[in-house]
Amino acid sequence: GHIIVAGHGESGSQAVSELLRRGSLPQEILVIEQNEKARAAAVALGVNVMDADATRNATLEAARLKTARALIVSTGRDDTSILVTLTAHGLAPDVPIRTVIRHVDNETLARTAGADTVINPASFAGLLLAGACHGPHTADYLADLAATDGRVSLNERPVAPTEIGKSLADLESGLGLRIYRGELAIGFWEDGARTLKPGDMIVEIVPNS
Amino acid sequence: GHIIVAGHGESGSQAVSELLRRGSLPQEILVIEQNEKARAAAVALGVNVMDADATRNATLEAARLKTARALIVSTGRDDTSILVTLTAHGLAPDVPIRTVIRHVDNETLARTAGADTVINPASFAGLLLAGACHGPHTADYLADLAATDGRVSLNERPVAPTEIGKSLADLESGLGLRIYRGELAIGFWEDGARTLKPGDMIVEIVPNS
Ligand SMILES: [Ca+2]
Ligand SMILES: [Ca+2]
Repeated sequence: GHIIVAGHGESGSQAVSELLRRGSLPQEILVIEQNEKARAAAVALGVNVMDADATRNATLEAARLKTARALIVSTGRDDTSILVTLTAHGLAPDVPIRTVIRHVDNETLARTAGADTVINPASFAGLLLAGACHGPHTADYLADLAATDGRVSLNERPVAPTEIGKSLADLESGLGLRIYRGELAIGFWEDGARTLKPGDMIVEIVPNS
Repeated sequence: GHIIVAGHGESGSQAVSELLRRGSLPQEILVIEQNEKARAAAVALGVNVMDADATRNATLEAARLKTARALIVSTGRDDTSILVTLTAHGLAPDVPIRTVIRHVDNETLARTAGADTVINPASFAGLLLAGACHGPHTADYLADLAATDGRVSLNERPVAPTEIGKSLADLESGLGLRIYRGELAIGFWEDGARTLKPGDMIVEIVPNS
């Protein structure tokens, strides 16, 4: 499936660039954007571009939302982003929605509207700023974890058949951090991490070679 | 030393809240802010507040920048933030400066001006948005790592005397990720991580109890 990006401002364009770095093909990405300059920046990246209002059903239907792998909502305005989220969730409740929100007060609203992941850039920046005061390298380490380049990456994948029965501490691919097992999130220090089971999702830190 | 926060908008106020959550005392934090509403929000947190222009030498001197533990620059405008960074770096080259930048083009400028850590919230949001499309839990895991609450924290600390000679993999406090040894950053998978040495700084993931 394709990935739809509603809004190609600062956050949206960074998301598109990172998707391309992570191996998405330009033709798998569809940007919806009404601002001409932001649209031109998307065209320059080689992705598909629609000049339309993402808050409207007709736009999201034309964007084939129902068959999309994910929807990223980053319109730059919380009211617009929440309306896009609400409209999209109504049309295609199974498509994961990642919504960027600027004000803390709107985070819960965005989740209620149907966002599976809510990202508040300012809130994250605050965490990194505060963290850096307590440890100068932590902000850089988190940035490295989040990006595909640098020295390490944070990776999420299903358990491999050959790993079943082993401990999370014994992964050969990287450093195992957490297991998602059904509704449970199991930390590396917990008993449940001693034996990997079929169906587990693993979050790990992988060195970049 | 105290921590000076120039700009109490979205990012700055989130930084102050997180500093308080991490154990900083309100009287150790000084907010410089010219907007009345943003200043009132800082007053409500119990921190020290100055109504002044942080781009001016006199303001930073009155804020006792030279004895500060760190300066956070989050004025909301890249031109202002770069000017504050430049002024501060000239006055107190040894005080760590963490600067929030909104446009990618200005990141290098901020570093040149003297910022030790440059945080671009939109850029980080883009990474998280893209990452979430490749692994639904990675954005949440990173947010948990960055914040003191939740299930885990990213921690940076000097090696303990009792740990010298041991391997990074054998920490009892948490999961060892990286060692900073002089100019070197040593990953958990590298030979240098097998033997901890005096003076090492350790970055680790610690479970919250
Ligand atoms: Ca990386
Ligand atoms: Ca946490």
